[in-house]
Amino acid sequence: MKEITRKDEIIKTAAKLFKEKGYSAVTMRDLATAMGIKAASLYNHISSKQEILKEIIISLAEAFTQGMEQIKMSNNTCVEKLNKIVELHVSITSQNTFGMASLNNDWMHLEEQLDYYLELRLNYEENFRSILKSGIQNGEISNKNVEVMLFSMLSTLRSLYIWIPNKDAINVKKLSAQLSNVLIEGIR
Amino acid sequence: MKEITRKDEIIKTAAKLFKEKGYSAVTMRDLATAMGIKAASLYNHISSKQEILKEIIISLAEAFTQGMEQIKMSNNTCVEKLNKIVELHVSITSQNTFGMASLNNDWMHLEEQLDYYLELRLNYEENFRSILKSGIQNGEISNKNVEVMLFSMLSTLRSLYIWIPNKDAINVKKLSAQLSNVLIEGIR
Repeated sequence: MKEITRKDEIIKTAAKLFKEKGYSAVTMRDLATAMGIKAASLYNHISSKQEILKEIIISLAEAFTQGMEQIKMSNNTCVEKLNKIVELHVSITSQNTFGMASLNNDWMHLEEQLDYYLELRLNYEENFRSILKSGIQNGEISNKNVEVMLFSMLSTLRSLYIWIPNKDAINVKKLSAQLSNVLIEGIR
Repeated sequence: MKEITRKDEIIKTAAKLFKEKGYSAVTMRDLATAMGIKAASLYNHISSKQEILKEIIISLAEAFTQGMEQIKMSNNTCVEKLNKIVELHVSITSQNTFGMASLNNDWMHLEEQLDYYLELRLNYEENFRSILKSGIQNGEISNKNVEVMLFSMLSTLRSLYIWIPNKDAINVKKLSAQLSNVLIEGIR
């Protein structure tokens, strides 16, 4: 278990404020107030609102990238890989719903790191697409419309942060299994 | 075909600006500049930014409500009703992607109309849920997890505004059929 630093607390509080008010509307003063410290003390830990946004979004995007790399390299079937992707999203989102809200709503406010973020996202989508294509090729997936499948699955997984906070005592394995079932097997 | 009024043009331009900069960051001055008119002229057509937001969001929310009422009253099977819901979302979204972005991102900025909007949304979700439940009861739908199905389908349908603008020459019937197929039959 990583030690929780003051910087971590600042980032966590900021993510909550970004979700409530939107990134643009939050000031360093708001953040200091929410932390119960002086604005000047904030700057001992963090240089700017932009640095906080970068910490939130890039660390999440890199966690997804790493998760996807492991899934891609594994010897699982394509459908098993899709199950693992669902689990990756449920797991990361349930640990950090405010951060995921910021990732979804505020990524366009990234400055220097915007290109890097977009590269990670594009790469993630490309890996997801490849798994779907392999599944079609080897007959595991009968639907042929890669882009519609990719859009549909990603939309659901990217919206998890809206929905997960409403669920009491989230069980990652159970929710992942239920969601995989709906996404992969359909509802009929 | 309804005549396009100056007010309609203002609303359309505002929706585009809201999407690009976020509702909070857009001023009436920005809107006047984007329209190529004087700020004072704007007020001949519209009283405030809030009125514009209300026009965008409430008219869309009411269109969804009306569509859902018709679907609910029809004699279709539950699966056919779900197909119709998908078509309703593809159709409304393809006609007004900027408005749908505003509906998704800016609804929390509604003031007097917020409760009414939330009532429409809750009602819409409740009707959607009822169709899924009826489908389970009569054996059309084999998955039993109503909330996961509802979340998954609604997440995808609500994200359509992000995806549709990228598709050239959208064919509503065709895309609706492809999407229904993925959502209802799954991908396997």
